[in-house]
Amino acid sequence: MHIDRGDTAHHDDTSRLEAFSDGVFAIAITLLVLEIGVPHVAGDESLTHALLHLWPSYFGYAVSFITIGVMWINHHEMFKDIERTDHTLSALNLVLLLGIAFLPFPTAVVAQYMTNDAHRLEATLTYSLTFTMIALAFIALWLYAIRHPDLLDEHVSQARLRSRTRRYAPGTFLYGVTIPLAFISPFISLGLIAAYALFYLLPLADE
Amino acid sequence: MHIDRGDTAHHDDTSRLEAFSDGVFAIAITLLVLEIGVPHVAGDESLTHALLHLWPSYFGYAVSFITIGVMWINHHEMFKDIERTDHTLSALNLVLLLGIAFLPFPTAVVAQYMTNDAHRLEATLTYSLTFTMIALAFIALWLYAIRHPDLLDEHVSQARLRSRTRRYAPGTFLYGVTIPLAFISPFISLGLIAAYALFYLLPLADE
Amino acid sequence: MHIDRGDTAHHDDTSRLEAFSDGVFAIAITLLVLEIGVPHVAGDESLTHALLHLWPSYFGYAVSFITIGVMWINHHEMFKDIERTDHTLSALNLVLLLGIAFLPFPTAVVAQYMTNDAHRLEATLTYSLTFTMIALAFIALWLYAIRHPDLLDEHVSQARLRSRTRRYAPGTFLYGVTIPLAFISPFISLGLIAAYALFYLLPLADE
Amino acid sequence: MHIDRGDTAHHDDTSRLEAFSDGVFAIAITLLVLEIGVPHVAGDESLTHALLHLWPSYFGYAVSFITIGVMWINHHEMFKDIERTDHTLSALNLVLLLGIAFLPFPTAVVAQYMTNDAHRLEATLTYSLTFTMIALAFIALWLYAIRHPDLLDEHVSQARLRSRTRRYAPGTFLYGVTIPLAFISPFISLGLIAAYALFYLLPLADE
Repeated sequence: MHIDRGDTAHHDDTSRLEAFSDGVFAIAITLLVLEIGVPHVAGDESLTHALLHLWPSYFGYAVSFITIGVMWINHHEMFKDIERTDHTLSALNLVLLLGIAFLPFPTAVVAQYMTNDAHRLEATLTYSLTFTMIALAFIALWLYAIRHPDLLDEHVSQARLRSRTRRYAPGTFLYGVTIPLAFISPFISLGLIAAYALFYLLPLADE
Repeated sequence: MHIDRGDTAHHDDTSRLEAFSDGVFAIAITLLVLEIGVPHVAGDESLTHALLHLWPSYFGYAVSFITIGVMWINHHEMFKDIERTDHTLSALNLVLLLGIAFLPFPTAVVAQYMTNDAHRLEATLTYSLTFTMIALAFIALWLYAIRHPDLLDEHVSQARLRSRTRRYAPGTFLYGVTIPLAFISPFISLGLIAAYALFYLLPLADE
Repeated sequence: MHIDRGDTAHHDDTSRLEAFSDGVFAIAITLLVLEIGVPHVAGDESLTHALLHLWPSYFGYAVSFITIGVMWINHHEMFKDIERTDHTLSALNLVLLLGIAFLPFPTAVVAQYMTNDAHRLEATLTYSLTFTMIALAFIALWLYAIRHPDLLDEHVSQARLRSRTRRYAPGTFLYGVTIPLAFISPFISLGLIAAYALFYLLPLADE
Repeated sequence: MHIDRGDTAHHDDTSRLEAFSDGVFAIAITLLVLEIGVPHVAGDESLTHALLHLWPSYFGYAVSFITIGVMWINHHEMFKDIERTDHTLSALNLVLLLGIAFLPFPTAVVAQYMTNDAHRLEATLTYSLTFTMIALAFIALWLYAIRHPDLLDEHVSQARLRSRTRRYAPGTFLYGVTIPLAFISPFISLGLIAAYALFYLLPLADE
């Protein structure tokens, strides 16, 4: 049943692919909270102390949440110019979603081990690597699309396509660079990944 | 890839932002049940006793469920008058969703510690603070929208906008006041938060 | 913010209420699987033995899954005749969803304790009671709707409305009767609840 | 309430059935990640070692993710030719979703036991059996549809229907054959199931 390939030779419109992707983005973003376990308060510790001790979980939750949110916005933007899908585009989109839906795991790894001197570097690399892979899947999707003009909205100008490419391409570099930087200091890598998310939220550039 | 900002300078319609938000609301509300663990019945305890002992979990489930449900209805109402979105509105909406999707965690904290004399106050504050932050994000979203008339439905009267503001503004106060009240008695704060949810369900005002 | 009631005095169409409800049904039905934990195989036990030992979990999964599925179909059917919503209808629908989203918990309780002689009755009652409450919320929603003709599709005949009432009303009885029957034998109650689900799946009546 | 059957004698369009199915597919695919637990690093073990040790979980995650994704695409394709639904089709679709939503469980079983010599065979059979059942539900749905032409898009040619049948039918065999093969070697079965998923992703056939 499922190794059905030939039928997608004609080009479908992207509405259901987008709806399915929206679902995966929305669920992955909401599952992040499950990573934060209710703390067991030991002896005469205060609950506040135990809750504050979970700060790496809040950090991971917030950074991954905003990053997935921004990725969703970008995915949504990109599909304004992509009007049809073929087999390869669907497959590339599935690989992108595989990465997005995986994010709760490295988020939990980084939350649990970023305060552990012995494991911080490896936890950070897990996080950086996942984001870099997602960025690669994202740009691969876009590059495939613009090389197949029959998939694009015919009214889109070349200038607009180039502008998108210029804006999407740096993502791989921005996340990729956090991999070697982690060997200098994991905090720099985590700080950069958080800064990317925060930068998006800042309204300054708009005003 | 993901620090894409310039492209949203034009104003998009809000349909996919609403669909994505609907997804996050629906998932967060449904994940609440995972907080309620099946009780381990010890020795010759009855299961009924063990189940009744979980009443703080049912309380937290019901209060958070109804409150998220009401917030969803309000979000839905608000976006009847908001017709377009820009970067800042999307970012503010993402912050609101960050709070909504976080709710299963403080709900679990309050369920586990509200019967514990030593930790009740802190658990209640966790709950109150989260709701207050969400109310702040909600009113910030609305105030931003009405200060940018190009985002609004042009047929909406000033009277209607003022009426919405009058109705949305008290939320921050209503939840905010449960923070100092918790220092007098956590039960007053939890009771008030439950009363807000219950008040919504009461059909009296309608009839 | 959230004790907003006045605004819903006008009647909204039900499309977003339906979409939100669909989301909650789909998520609740899919979360059921989380109740089934991977078994820890002890000593030289076979995995097959351990997996078969989980049969109450499969039973609970299948029965709750099909029942939620059928409830979704009925909800969907009902809203073909309901065209507008008001505050009370939204509130009643929220109470119905509160019950639907709660179902993974009693399902887990029944799966864990139905093979335990000491706790079987109480576990069954938890399950029966939840279904009965949902059935009550369901019929309350319908009865409210048909008493407010302004909410209904004006082209619907009285005969069709009466036919729906006749079909929806027995649900409360069918589930309600499993409560006293559990005191005779929990297996009768569980068997009946399973039979209701199975009866729906049987294609006989159609052909 | 819920043993409502008569009302579906008329044929509904499939849009809400598709939307509900999309939801279940999207949630099941995203829940897969919950199977991968954050490893507890023992003594002076490295986190990298602990993370690599989880490779069966990544394997299960990736294979199940892509397979559910491909099944979703096929489901979506199939419903382009099915325009109306009746009671039996809805029931068959519900059985298909029952299998899809169940997948996180056998995925977790195979992830936990595929490296265990004593339990590998049984874990593999659990996985193979689930996929075979899903393939059976899938082809049953399709065969029912093509025997009830009133459910189909009237503009669809017989040739196209036969072509779909030829493409969907082998699924049951392809997964079914992994059951006896597991008795020769579980690795052959798991390798085949992974190969089916991988084959879909390969863009070769398209170009």
